Amino acid sequence: MSTVLPDAAGAGTRYETPSSYADLPRYGPDVTATVATELERRWAGDPSFLGTMCHYALVPTGKLFRPTLLAESALAVGGELDWVLPAAVGAECGHVASLVHDDIIDHDDLRRGRASVQHKFGIGDAIVAGDALIFDLFAGLAECRETGVPPDRVVSALAAVSRAGLDLCRGQCLESELSRDLRFDADAYLMVAKLKTAAYFRGACESGAIMGGGQASDIEALAAYGEYLGLAFQIHDDLLAYVSDQEATGKSATSDLENARMTLPVIKAYQAATEAERQIIRDCMAKSLTPLDALDLLHDLLRRTGAIEATAAIALDYAQKARYALDCLPPSASRDRLCWIAELVIARDH
Amino acid sequence: MSTVLPDAAGAGTRYETPSSYADLPRYGPDVTATVATELERRWAGDPSFLGTMCHYALVPTGKLFRPTLLAESALAVGGELDWVLPAAVGAECGHVASLVHDDIIDHDDLRRGRASVQHKFGIGDAIVAGDALIFDLFAGLAECRETGVPPDRVVSALAAVSRAGLDLCRGQCLESELSRDLRFDADAYLMVAKLKTAAYFRGACESGAIMGGGQASDIEALAAYGEYLGLAFQIHDDLLAYVSDQEATGKSATSDLENARMTLPVIKAYQAATEAERQIIRDCMAKSLTPLDALDLLHDLLRRTGAIEATAAIALDYAQKARYALDCLPPSASRDRLCWIAELVIARDH
Repeated sequence: MSTVLPDAAGAGTRYETPSSYADLPRYGPDVTATVATELERRWAGDPSFLGTMCHYALVPTGKLFRPTLLAESALAVGGELDWVLPAAVGAECGHVASLVHDDIIDHDDLRRGRASVQHKFGIGDAIVAGDALIFDLFAGLAECRETGVPPDRVVSALAAVSRAGLDLCRGQCLESELSRDLRFDADAYLMVAKLKTAAYFRGACESGAIMGGGQASDIEALAAYGEYLGLAFQIHDDLLAYVSDQEATGKSATSDLENARMTLPVIKAYQAATEAERQIIRDCMAKSLTPLDALDLLHDLLRRTGAIEATAAIALDYAQKARYALDCLPPSASRDRLCWIAELVIARDH
Repeated sequence: MSTVLPDAAGAGTRYETPSSYADLPRYGPDVTATVATELERRWAGDPSFLGTMCHYALVPTGKLFRPTLLAESALAVGGELDWVLPAAVGAECGHVASLVHDDIIDHDDLRRGRASVQHKFGIGDAIVAGDALIFDLFAGLAECRETGVPPDRVVSALAAVSRAGLDLCRGQCLESELSRDLRFDADAYLMVAKLKTAAYFRGACESGAIMGGGQASDIEALAAYGEYLGLAFQIHDDLLAYVSDQEATGKSATSDLENARMTLPVIKAYQAATEAERQIIRDCMAKSLTPLDALDLLHDLLRRTGAIEATAAIALDYAQKARYALDCLPPSASRDRLCWIAELVIARDH
């Protein structure tokens, strides 16, 4: 599969569908590698128990979508990577904080292929480690004044990032409510995805564009890109739970089932199912079966009802909307890479 | 008991030792009441589950030391209450976030005389409510640009507040380590109190002074005041667990014992105790007895060894240092009230 995307010069270039950052077009700074190096340093010099936990949570690093989006958004509007690097690192700290707390909430012992922070260090200390990473997100923002971002832009970014964090929490609470009700409701699912995931992607792009010195229209375009991208990302993520294996994702394949998460593949299957099949789905989500038996049954039902394809089509649609949102930006290497990332988020296998 | 403190005109005024804000000198704006009104509004308009939890956590309000300190510090250097009100409200949100998470960590079901957030809403959702309140702390800071604080000051406050939050987390982790070791170490206790409590008091005063437009020397004086005050506050708080009753404090009297918190009264008793008494203290802290039996035994031992008086003397010393730190500030109603608060924190019975 290949897709035509505009390149930096505005002409059509044929890209292979990406499956990792290794395929990312490399002209300009290697943003993701620079962020990874900074993240590895961030807590490495702190020998305290808190430092040990935070470093463990951050390193080895994950896919670094959020800091990469923040930095590329800054570059796409004419900013410098050095200016926003502490904020990019902070964006990952805030994201990892939510993972650390999520793993407590969901009783997940596995994260990125190894023991989750709560499993390794205990729930109490993991709560504090997550809190510290949230404070570090904001410490990173403040550091951007030292690296060259005018204070007024830092404050605008602060407003965007704190709003995104609040939305993330709203999304988590809404998801928790929906799980209790076992509601097969695509609109409610999309609202959760928008708040829980897309708001933070939006916040990363928006704050990067603000600190990079973008005009209002560029900032709004990148914010919209981030929101669509986040929706595509979350839908693809929820699909991976049913089409990928645990080894690839590095997290428990049955976690969504054990926490009764009403994700789009299951909702789509439920909508297309017969009444007898719906009963099976309800039983799977209501934990009437062992998680592995439920996963097997759902795998089969999702394939039979066409839910996999229906869900993938919705993810693709959001990814395309994300790319279109970039159209009004001037051509640049960063715009190309953001386009590419919109392909990557729905093509990755983990 | 009464104490001579300088008043706004610089002359000595004789105050009665305060036991609540009702006794606070009332010239100038009623900072605490204004903050309370804003806090009651902050989440009241949000009917979501998250809004319900955050409002429950914040209202009825607590003693509001931190927001009062932030606002009075701003006023003491010539700032306006309106400028910093969102940050003052945020300071309480951040503090309440730490209480919500602490109650999960310590398995405390009682807070301010009623069910703690985790007891009422469950651990998972309480973690998210605490996170939201941390994000709201920073949202409040960002709002101060709208209320009249120049962006450069907002960013300096952001740096101070995020640093204070990180120190708070460091203190919690250090305390958790000390509890595991059962170490009777006054220096380690003071380090925990400095990080866990005093850093946040310091951050409130420092950020208020920064946003109020204080000179560097005024900001440093108020930061030092906040740190000494926080130490006095924490030491008095730890004393209250052994000299006050549950009804007054609104939290479980045995919580410190059940969580093996090595607080200064117990450390002082241990230092002054015979070897036989030390064994009793070790048994109490190692949970070899029921919490209520342990509390009775410790009550008795703390009195016999003079630990109550020794601890109160240290709290008084820090409260005096806090007052002295204010000497270099110009006379003002806010400086008087900050002096008064340094009396209040070691005189209160809850």
